[in-house]
Amino acid sequence: MMHLAAFLFTPGSHSAGWRHPDAIAESDMDFAQYVRIAQAAERGKMDTIFFQDTVAVNGSAALDGVSQFRPGQGRQAYLEPTTLLAALAVVTQRIGLIATATTTYNEPYNIARRFASIDHISGGRAGWNLVTSQIEDEAGNFGADHHMLHAERYERAEEFYDVVASLWDSFGEGALIRDKASGVFIDPSKIHFQNHRGKHFSVRGPLNVGRSPQGRPIVTQAGSSGPGMELAARTADLVFTAQSDIAEAKAFYADLKARAARHGRDPAHVKVMPGLMTIIGRTEEEAQQKYRDMQALLSDENSMRLLARLCGDLDIFAYPPDAPLPPLPLSNAAQARQRHLVEKAKRDNLSIIQTARYLGTSLGHHLLVGTPQSIADTMEAWISEGACDGFTLLSAHYPVPLEDFVALVVPELQRRGLFRTEYTGTTLREHLGIPVPPNRYEA
Amino acid sequence: MMHLAAFLFTPGSHSAGWRHPDAIAESDMDFAQYVRIAQAAERGKMDTIFFQDTVAVNGSAALDGVSQFRPGQGRQAYLEPTTLLAALAVVTQRIGLIATATTTYNEPYNIARRFASIDHISGGRAGWNLVTSQIEDEAGNFGADHHMLHAERYERAEEFYDVVASLWDSFGEGALIRDKASGVFIDPSKIHFQNHRGKHFSVRGPLNVGRSPQGRPIVTQAGSSGPGMELAARTADLVFTAQSDIAEAKAFYADLKARAARHGRDPAHVKVMPGLMTIIGRTEEEAQQKYRDMQALLSDENSMRLLARLCGDLDIFAYPPDAPLPPLPLSNAAQARQRHLVEKAKRDNLSIIQTARYLGTSLGHHLLVGTPQSIADTMEAWISEGACDGFTLLSAHYPVPLEDFVALVVPELQRRGLFRTEYTGTTLREHLGIPVPPNRYEA
Repeated sequence: MMHLAAFLFTPGSHSAGWRHPDAIAESDMDFAQYVRIAQAAERGKMDTIFFQDTVAVNGSAALDGVSQFRPGQGRQAYLEPTTLLAALAVVTQRIGLIATATTTYNEPYNIARRFASIDHISGGRAGWNLVTSQIEDEAGNFGADHHMLHAERYERAEEFYDVVASLWDSFGEGALIRDKASGVFIDPSKIHFQNHRGKHFSVRGPLNVGRSPQGRPIVTQAGSSGPGMELAARTADLVFTAQSDIAEAKAFYADLKARAARHGRDPAHVKVMPGLMTIIGRTEEEAQQKYRDMQALLSDENSMRLLARLCGDLDIFAYPPDAPLPPLPLSNAAQARQRHLVEKAKRDNLSIIQTARYLGTSLGHHLLVGTPQSIADTMEAWISEGACDGFTLLSAHYPVPLEDFVALVVPELQRRGLFRTEYTGTTLREHLGIPVPPNRYEA
Repeated sequence: MMHLAAFLFTPGSHSAGWRHPDAIAESDMDFAQYVRIAQAAERGKMDTIFFQDTVAVNGSAALDGVSQFRPGQGRQAYLEPTTLLAALAVVTQRIGLIATATTTYNEPYNIARRFASIDHISGGRAGWNLVTSQIEDEAGNFGADHHMLHAERYERAEEFYDVVASLWDSFGEGALIRDKASGVFIDPSKIHFQNHRGKHFSVRGPLNVGRSPQGRPIVTQAGSSGPGMELAARTADLVFTAQSDIAEAKAFYADLKARAARHGRDPAHVKVMPGLMTIIGRTEEEAQQKYRDMQALLSDENSMRLLARLCGDLDIFAYPPDAPLPPLPLSNAAQARQRHLVEKAKRDNLSIIQTARYLGTSLGHHLLVGTPQSIADTMEAWISEGACDGFTLLSAHYPVPLEDFVALVVPELQRRGLFRTEYTGTTLREHLGIPVPPNRYEA
């Protein structure tokens, strides 16, 4: 069974998608639009929505005054993910609710509480997308002049995860007695203290939230660098990755599952769901026309700025735009996305400006332009050839492309028996087929 | 016009309230109960709900192993306030939504984002109860072996507030252009950077959430110590305080309003709302019987432990329970609550155990036992004599005492013209009569 996540990156994952006549450009700040998007994904029986996040306005680092601030198009302001998903829990019944929160600028106790609470509020549908902060923009909002180094961020993330996961096990089965007659509210022997003392955190515990319906909320990760893959293999239930070539995707898939097995985990319980943007037409020609219309909206300047952010210290603007993409110095930001882009450019022989446009179109993720049948063909091939367990669906803008996918591609997948026609469970774990983990203190 | 807030301290502000036959003891962890409580308060046309919070299980500090953990009754585990209130925004239409968040163990950027988001989700009904962490239990969950000193906590809180309030002004009027034709999404000249560099925080900004419906969410505070009152007078829209004597309350009220004026603020825009617990009977005798029934549930051991926490280094258990309350060393925790309790004990000639029981009954807040008429008489007197602008209503347990207040006392207040019969505004600022502040960068 294929798994599907609706990626929420308002006002659109195509950097000029918000300019499309169908686009609701206010989908970034308007709660009513998020309700519409979440309900569309639930109508499509998707496993989950998946809300991306950064803790800064993009492009805000490179300045010491307003005059140098050159904001990108779209995605500057949006609702904070954990409060947003708690609210969306109330207007949905079954769909999973995954929100991003960085380990770089948060405290584990606070993160453990919020996601456990969303899991309670939603009846077992919460997921935490664990990220390390990638962009220089964020550091300045948290007292840091410069961003933590890649290795240090991952070391902190490893410890952060361990603390959060153990906090989620604070309350044992039957800890909350609440016996009115005797006046015994709690059984202290079933309350578990962490007493964690590590390099980055000291956390005594216990968490002041009862164990949640999923035992622990689902944990997702997008790290595809070496340290990112190790962290994901050890800890993630769901892995979001950028893969646009089936051979590379199969290698990544096999590598990650093998790493999970080496960590003593059942590889089937780690779901790999690469990003996928679709532009859907009822005919191939209609799809191609839609794609051309969309690309006409794209700003080369904006796309070049997206590329520049993945180029580390190299000044990409100093090169002729039609030259091939030069070798890039290793970035302190998203190393796996950088490598994916370099490989894509090499494979498809893309110039600098073409690479930039690819990035501006789908954030560097796999793009399929076609009919529901041709799109379903590719999705089916990726699943049947062992390239992934499902897809994280990017929308060029909101809500129409997502609604199109639900109306046109989902029925085609259902017809082929590749995707559920109704939810069979009530929790995100049940949708994904990942069992509730035992409480580590009671195993 | 009197203002009313429903204090949410599940499973009850009376430390044995959860044992009452009417009590739903699971109101701490069950979202459906919070919905019922919030909707009852909204049916009563109250200005707001007000959710208290600590970031620890009570009593968890004094141990290095489970064997020494002696949990209090009730209030050990509950839903995290900001996610809870975002969800409650969806099932209510008018009532304000105030949640507590500590400045001691959070980052201003994260707090500014979450409350601005709740303000958007709720259409302008969010409020932030700014607290400094009071209990030793919390420090151990955030890498600190010992709790910050009182003065340092307030210094940090002052700066924390300034950063949050300025972040809320990040987006000027018309900053989000979203012009599809030109491709201009944002006007950089209307995006305001904080570039804050202080003793505790360095925050560049801007916040990545558009300015919210209230301009800034309402800010509330409970500090009634010297530094607490100064912070409240300078920054708070609503002040929650423990006052059980009308003469003292009038002095506090006059003092706080004078301080607000000295900070250049309109004293009418700082609402003072002391805590009030009511036990309501249709007759005086019924009320007194209810009170006796409630007190019979109270555990002296538990009440003594509540008192011990306010005694600083003094070992209150070493004194005979019937002795008068001895002088207490200045606490590093809630200094104003400690002083209030000492004065209450002196005024009413309470022994140690009687003082402990008072604390166990109403968290040390004003308690009224009587008919709707007698309760309304006292509330009316406090308002007309300038002792307060309204009340923060504590419930012994949930949901019945709050539902009783709505069914019995609110109509009596309405009959006297003291309280609204219908909401006239849609935002919490409108309910409180506090105007939207100008954007500091555009004034």
